[in-house]
This record gives sequence, C-alpha cells and structure tokens, in this order.
Amino acid sequence: MSAPEAATPEAATPEVATLADLEAARERIAEQAVVTPLLTSPELSRKLGYRVLLKCENLQRTGSFKFRGAYNALASMTPEQRARGVVAFSSGNHAQGVAAAAEIFEAPATIVMPADAPAIKIANTRSYGAEVQLYDRYREEREAIGERLVEERGCTLVRPFDDPRIIAGQGTCGLEIAEQAAAVKLELDRVLVCCGGGGLTAGIALALEGRSPRTRIYTCEPADFDDTARSLAAGARLANQPGPRSICDALLSAKPGELTFPINARRVTAGLTVTDREVETAMAYAFRRLKLVVEPGGAVCLAALFAGKLEVGASETVCITLSGGNVDPSVLAAALERNPDV
Amino acid sequence: MSAPEAATPEAATPEVATLADLEAARERIAEQAVVTPLLTSPELSRKLGYRVLLKCENLQRTGSFKFRGAYNALASMTPEQRARGVVAFSSGNHAQGVAAAAEIFEAPATIVMPADAPAIKIANTRSYGAEVQLYDRYREEREAIGERLVEERGCTLVRPFDDPRIIAGQGTCGLEIAEQAAAVKLELDRVLVCCGGGGLTAGIALALEGRSPRTRIYTCEPADFDDTARSLAAGARLANQPGPRSICDALLSAKPGELTFPINARRVTAGLTVTDREVETAMAYAFRRLKLVVEPGGAVCLAALFAGKLEVGASETVCITLSGGNVDPSVLAAALERNPDV
Repeated sequence: MSAPEAATPEAATPEVATLADLEAARERIAEQAVVTPLLTSPELSRKLGYRVLLKCENLQRTGSFKFRGAYNALASMTPEQRARGVVAFSSGNHAQGVAAAAEIFEAPATIVMPADAPAIKIANTRSYGAEVQLYDRYREEREAIGERLVEERGCTLVRPFDDPRIIAGQGTCGLEIAEQAAAVKLELDRVLVCCGGGGLTAGIALALEGRSPRTRIYTCEPADFDDTARSLAAGARLANQPGPRSICDALLSAKPGELTFPINARRVTAGLTVTDREVETAMAYAFRRLKLVVEPGGAVCLAALFAGKLEVGASETVCITLSGGNVDPSVLAAALERNPDV
Repeated sequence: MSAPEAATPEAATPEVATLADLEAARERIAEQAVVTPLLTSPELSRKLGYRVLLKCENLQRTGSFKFRGAYNALASMTPEQRARGVVAFSSGNHAQGVAAAAEIFEAPATIVMPADAPAIKIANTRSYGAEVQLYDRYREEREAIGERLVEERGCTLVRPFDDPRIIAGQGTCGLEIAEQAAAVKLELDRVLVCCGGGGLTAGIALALEGRSPRTRIYTCEPADFDDTARSLAAGARLANQPGPRSICDALLSAKPGELTFPINARRVTAGLTVTDREVETAMAYAFRRLKLVVEPGGAVCLAALFAGKLEVGASETVCITLSGGNVDPSVLAAALERNPDV
C-alpha cells in the first residue's frame, strides 16, 4: 500500500537527509550514544511463529532513541549557539535527550513539558540539569511557548522531529539495524517502527532505503492517534481528532511532520494501530519474559505482532523497535496486574 | 590475592572443561540460546568514573545465564537418556533453564524447588511443561529429594554447577565477553561475576584464562552468603552458617562447588560482598536508568561497584555480569520505593 512515488508532491522536494548525513551523525554521536543491541529472542520467535529481532532503543542513553537526534542536533550547532542555550518542547523523551545532550555540552537547556507527563520523565529531565517549564497539554500550545522562549532568550529551538539533524540522528538507529542484521546473516523482511511525529520512522526509512531497500517498513500507533496510518492511506497529512487519551504518552503528536511525512509516504508500506490494552499486554511480556523495561509508546510494535495486526510468513524475519523505556512503575504495575498470565 | 597455584591440591586434578569444551558447548547452544549483549552505558561510566560494560545475562533465554549450561547438558545426553527424563534441584533459575531445555528436546522434567522461591520462577518453570516439586528450604535436603527421584524414575540428575557440561555451558558467556570486548577494541581490566555455587564464575574464568589472561576476576556475593569470598581467602572450601536470609535467592548455595572451586581458586583475584540494601539500590538504578529488569542475585556486581567495594582507576574497563532478571514485581517495587532518588 505504499503511496505511488509521483502522487505525493513532497516526494519531489530535495532530500532532507542523505545517507551521508546519517553516517556523519553516527560519527558525531559515537562517543556518547549507545550502539543498542539488536536482540534475538528464540522464545518470542517460537511464540509468534516467525523470527523476531528487537531493536532495543529503551537501552539507549536517556532511555529512548531520542538522544541520537538531540545529540546530533547540538553537536551540529556552533559553540556560540550552544552557549546561548537550547529550548525543546516534548512529552518527555525528546526532553531527556536534549537535556542530556545539553549537559554534555554544558549548554543551558529549557524544556517545555506537559504537566501530565510521566513523573519519571520530568524527574530525569531535571536530573540532567535542565530547567523544566510545565504546561497544560489540553489547553496550551507548546510550540507557542517554545517560540516565545526563543524570542526572549535568543536560544535555539530543537524541534522533536521536523529538523534534518534530528531525522539524521534517529537514522543512525536504522544504520545499526541494517548492519546488525547483516552481521548475523539475516535479511530483514519487515521493520516495524513506533511512530509519533515520524522522526524515527523517517530516519530508519532513509537508512534502509540505502542499506536494505527490499525491507518493508510499517508504522505502529495508538488506535486514536493514528494520524500517520490515515495520512499514509490518504496520501496527505491528516490530523488527529482532539479529545481521546492514551497511555502511549510518547506518541501523542497531533499530525505527521512536514519533513518526516514525505519520506514516510514514499517508503512506508502501511500504518498499524493498537489499543492501550494491547500495549499493556506487550509491556507485561517485555517485563516478565524479555526482562526489558518498555514504556507504553515503546511497546506498540510488539503489541501489533501479539495482536496479529500483520500477517507474517513462517520464513520471514521481522525487526521491531522498542523505542523507549521511561515508564512510571505504577503504570507498569497496572499492566502486569491486568496481564497475570502473560 | 589469588591462591598460589600449587597450594590447592585440587589444582592438580585434570581440567574439568577445556577451551575446546567451551567452544563445543557454544556450537551446541547456538541455535537456541541468545548471544546476550555486552552493553555500554556512557551514563553509568560517567557516574562511576571508569568504563563499565554490562554482560546482560538477564536477557538470556529463560531470564538467566542458566539456560546455557542446562541446554548444553541436555544436548550432550543421548536421546535414550533424555527420553527417561531429567531431574534438577534449583531455587529457580537453573530450574527454568533445565525445564526450557527439556521442553525443546521433548524430555520429561521434574524440578525440585524451594517453596519460598519467587513466584515468577515457579510459574515460569511450570510454563515450560516441567513437573515442579516444592520442598522446605530450611528443613529438607534438596539433594536427597533429587537423588530419590533419580532412583525411582531412572532419570538423569542435572546438577546446578558441579558438572563439567554445566561449567562449559556457562563458559560460553565468558567466550562472548572476551570477543565482544575485543570487537569494540577494549581490553578488560576486571570482570565481576555474580556467584552462588560458582558455575558461572568457573566458566568465565576458563574462557578468560584462554582469551583474556590478564583480566582480573572477582566474585560478588550477598554479605551472609560469602562462602566463596571466605573460601578464596582461606584456600579451602568453607560453608555458610545456617540461619541468615537474603533477597538474593539465586545465590544462596551452602558452599563452593567441588568442581568449580579449584578453578576459581586458581583464577579469581578476590571475593566481594554486598548487603541486600546495596542490592536494592542497584536494582532500582537498573530499572530506572538502564531499563533492565535485574533480579537481586543478578544485581550484586552492580551493587559492589556502586558501594565502592573495589578501587578502580579512571582508565580501567570493568565488565560486570547481570546474571538474571527473574524478580517478582513486588520485590522490585520495594527496591524502587526505598530508593526514590536513584
């Protein structure tokens, strides 16, 4: 179901990031980021009936893939720009990524976060020395707050996904996936990516376009935040309806990114969606059997496989991203309680 | 402080497992076991002041390194032996390893477990199709129960550590450590190993003796179950006093193994000990920052580093084993509650 290449006008715009940009980003982040494992799980593969590989971005520095893009963005700035400080708006993972990168560069960081973000994300962001400004997710515009800070302080706004440096940084995850699979002599039939604004998806798409072009890519989203799935089907950027809530706090962006969507429209086969209950089952399995702490938004791909959202042949190899692990213990405990036999 | 080579009479006995045995074990388990990641954590390294590598055996199949030895033991048996069934006594991780291996070979398995073993370990052992027989850890002899079953049923006893096939199987973890460190061009100055009966330590010691001979090895144990630390210092196998309890259920063996101790006496520099409180702090850090589920017995090495039990230079590289992740959520929740700021 990939959109025909010529149908989306955006496909004609020059590429926001090339494979060379991804490679440069990898060089930049190498000293500070983790080359996260592409984990096998014979037990999970046996359970699902096909080979599954887990790209464990929950094991990335700051507990999510966001450190890749954030550090790449800050490393790409001049020392003078960094000295004036950075601002980011984020539900929590980009927040931690930017805060941790700013701490390394000794740059002042102000992070605008929703007041209902997980406590662990707010606490960790502060632990990196950032100033946190809380806002009401349902009544205030985070972009406006961020832009006001830029004006007042002369600092640089580090956007969560619509930024070529961010996309290139997240793309380093895709380079690793391609190379780690090749190192164990596996061809990737499909890769599933946790999708909010589409930055990780776009980065991985660019990497695989160059390194594993026959791999089919799928996005995974919460059921009521399926803007990317619907946009991919429609061939145009559609927004989510306001109102619904989800435990997948990392994936609640309003609509696909301006820069990320054209890339994803060209390369993503289809968008999958999962319910919060399906996500909780995946989190419980990850805790009990995989021994991995995975946050709701990081568990959507595993949830999609468990819920049979994709028909996969027995000879196929499927890679899923576990994009983050910043979950409050109480949320995980609830998931475990509701899934005693997983 | 390694015991002088000639001082321990056991050192003169022929080697229980050679490097070739470890390599053969690796071949045998390759299809079923996980090559667990040797994870870097720039944040943890920064916190401790030296480079730390984490050998994540909690991510091994069945949630602990024990699957390596158990599968190697069963794969080394004849089909006829396997068909008559296997018996194991274990507090839970060896239990799961043997049960999962037996399930793969379709061999009947009976596991003798203490009634106070973590619920997750009993449930998981049963989930692999094994028959579980519970006993009172403080009043009954598990060896006697196991041996009676062997007599009654003609099945094979798979010992938890005093068995060359088990030691060779656990040694595959050491082969991986040496090769994964070499792949990222790091020399291992020290390796810390979680120690109960000493099977993992002996396996890793044999691997590093051949592959990284200048690496110093340390065991880590719970404070009141420091039989290996005291035995290493004394140059002879000493038992623990009965009475004390610890949350480190995986490491409560009575004394060092008959086969494992001579190997460890020759190769281990010293034994470190940690308190349950120090273990809880390490578990909380692993959950919140590393996004890894680590059980108490699997967290003793991290606990030893946090508690400063070892003086490490800033230029050194230290590898620690996280040997298992089979922890009941309530035990982890308690550790998190008592360590809100970790």
